[in-house]
Amino acid sequence: MRPFDIHDDAHRRLNILTGEWVQVSPHRSKRPWSGQTEKNEIISKPEYDESCYLCPGNKRANGDVNPQYNGTFSFSNDFAAIPPDTPKGQFIDGLLQAKSEQGTCKVVCFSPRHDLTVPEMELDQIIPVIDLWIDECETLGALEHINYVQVFENKGEIMGCSNAHPHGQIWAQETIPVEPSKKQERQLGYFKIHGRSMLDDYLEQELVKDERIIFENDHFVALVPFWAVWPYEAMLLPKRRMSRITEMSHEEIESFAAAYHRLTIKYDNLFEISFPYSAGIHQAPFDNEIHEEWHWHMVFYPPLLRSATVKKFMVGYEMLANPQRDITPEFGAQKLKSMPEVHYKRLVE
Amino acid sequence: MRPFDIHDDAHRRLNILTGEWVQVSPHRSKRPWSGQTEKNEIISKPEYDESCYLCPGNKRANGDVNPQYNGTFSFSNDFAAIPPDTPKGQFIDGLLQAKSEQGTCKVVCFSPRHDLTVPEMELDQIIPVIDLWIDECETLGALEHINYVQVFENKGEIMGCSNAHPHGQIWAQETIPVEPSKKQERQLGYFKIHGRSMLDDYLEQELVKDERIIFENDHFVALVPFWAVWPYEAMLLPKRRMSRITEMSHEEIESFAAAYHRLTIKYDNLFEISFPYSAGIHQAPFDNEIHEEWHWHMVFYPPLLRSATVKKFMVGYEMLANPQRDITPEFGAQKLKSMPEVHYKRLVE
Ligand SMILES: O=P(O)(O)O[C@H]1O[C@H](CO)[C@@H](O)[C@H](O)[C@H]1O
Ligand SMILES: O=P(O)(O)O[C@H]1O[C@H](CO)[C@@H](O)[C@H](O)[C@H]1O
Repeated sequence: MRPFDIHDDAHRRLNILTGEWVQVSPHRSKRPWSGQTEKNEIISKPEYDESCYLCPGNKRANGDVNPQYNGTFSFSNDFAAIPPDTPKGQFIDGLLQAKSEQGTCKVVCFSPRHDLTVPEMELDQIIPVIDLWIDECETLGALEHINYVQVFENKGEIMGCSNAHPHGQIWAQETIPVEPSKKQERQLGYFKIHGRSMLDDYLEQELVKDERIIFENDHFVALVPFWAVWPYEAMLLPKRRMSRITEMSHEEIESFAAAYHRLTIKYDNLFEISFPYSAGIHQAPFDNEIHEEWHWHMVFYPPLLRSATVKKFMVGYEMLANPQRDITPEFGAQKLKSMPEVHYKRLVE
Repeated sequence: MRPFDIHDDAHRRLNILTGEWVQVSPHRSKRPWSGQTEKNEIISKPEYDESCYLCPGNKRANGDVNPQYNGTFSFSNDFAAIPPDTPKGQFIDGLLQAKSEQGTCKVVCFSPRHDLTVPEMELDQIIPVIDLWIDECETLGALEHINYVQVFENKGEIMGCSNAHPHGQIWAQETIPVEPSKKQERQLGYFKIHGRSMLDDYLEQELVKDERIIFENDHFVALVPFWAVWPYEAMLLPKRRMSRITEMSHEEIESFAAAYHRLTIKYDNLFEISFPYSAGIHQAPFDNEIHEEWHWHMVFYPPLLRSATVKKFMVGYEMLANPQRDITPEFGAQKLKSMPEVHYKRLVE
């Protein structure tokens, strides 16, 4: 029997940040597909849509009217999943356990333009988006009843985005949610043993290997993690360890905005569509502790697998047993690395 | 401030089987939806489809020809994600860790009829499906290199089902995957402290409360777990603790088939469509240990939320932070309980 080859043979990889394993099946990308395909209508959107509740000057569900904003704009979600006024309490009855949860859910409009997503915006329009994230994290994180702040973006209908106007969300809450708390535990464990941040050491290894690096700039590296689950999953990692996005210098913010821009342009270029994903920031809790173990990062989970219309379904085995991927992380990284750095729509013009 | 009410206020519930919490936002079901909707074409399928690689007598991708089967039929997946002939080995380089994984992936056709799903089959056609699952678990579980067997079904295109012919899958493998291993750890922890099965105690509580019970028959209970994530998630739980499905008596198999049938009929009746889901069995590892802590059960994860065309998206916050649901498990259970027990298509006839 020939020796085990990580690029060809079925195997499991450890996610050092969660302690969980992912099933990789590199040989499986050849299977035929006669299941569901996604719509791929290239609908050209107007700059302003009068029926959009996120466009400047329009009325929202609760009757409020959006200001005539020029840059970014954030407001409290009219249908917050975790509202601030939740009465405190708990319900404990044998094996049934529940606890009230207080929080705040905000919507963050990236631009007054209804038709522009991050890869199509200018760099100097993206910097204010990040400034706003930082502002919100500072303000929300300082609240008495808030211990964690989740910044995220659902891009594209296929990712459950309920409004096409480019926007993200911020949910801030009392408790540290499941995913960041796994990352907290693992990073803390590593820090206690090695006295260094796990992602510092990881990044050093990745830069030497250079198999999963998509690109780097002054302060950030874009890479496909060794344990990536989604076909074209990626991570933006600051070179300097920082616990939270609120610690960035102005220069680092610019560098981050440039990396965010560059990665999403590559994504759009991959299948020449507005590339869908859920993305977000994992950072230290806002619990008044220092968290030297935390190295914040931004992750991108895009669902598409083979084309604009064939996605990876995380169902059946994946829901019940274990995340599973077909193409290797190395393949994903090389593919993204090779994508042009200019948005395909600009090339056509 | 009025007191905390689990039926109205945002809260977190503990999943006793995984140790993880789910965010429940009961007040949130009122938000408007202008995002992606699902197709709802009622395509009437033929009894036999010559282009289907699962129909009797047809040719498969690898050239094999299916027998003219009358009942159930299983075969090794032509595109196995975890093939048996994977060379053994590992890759360890600092923080990068991978291990080869051997396994077997099988496809299980439920019926020769291309057009029949479980809720539309007769009870005496469903019993053989379960007999086959048991057979496969016994045979695969006995193999030297197999330690866990995952039986599952992806029903409906929206659940990534790549072929409309009613079928399920069985993936058997060396390692215990992430989800069942969480359940193993929690059940073992409870058993060590209390000397009883956690799900025995849980079931006792649920039967007394009667808030989340959908129905029961001689040997099985259908309920919505207190910690359910999906809008209409459900669980079939045997009344007698058994570690694996291979321990069922013939009477229990009949009772299980009847419960499976009854639950899926209620599902189809909910929105009067063929109700999509991923379902599967969680049971003790096939590792030659006894596993007195394990109480096997079948779970159903259906994606639909409000209608045949509006699903719950587990994206953004859910992927990055924490599973979140809108309607309460109690609401889901009452709704399913109230559904007729005769399939809507038969009522129309
Ligand atoms: O094996 P199938 O039916 O082609 O594929 C389906 O089920 C698998 C196991 O849940 C998933 O990995 C695939 O993403 C899904 O499309
Ligand atoms: O808040 P939205 O954009 O209406 O809703 C979207 O994002 C939320 C947070 O990830 C999810 O809970 C919803 O399922 C999704 O449709």
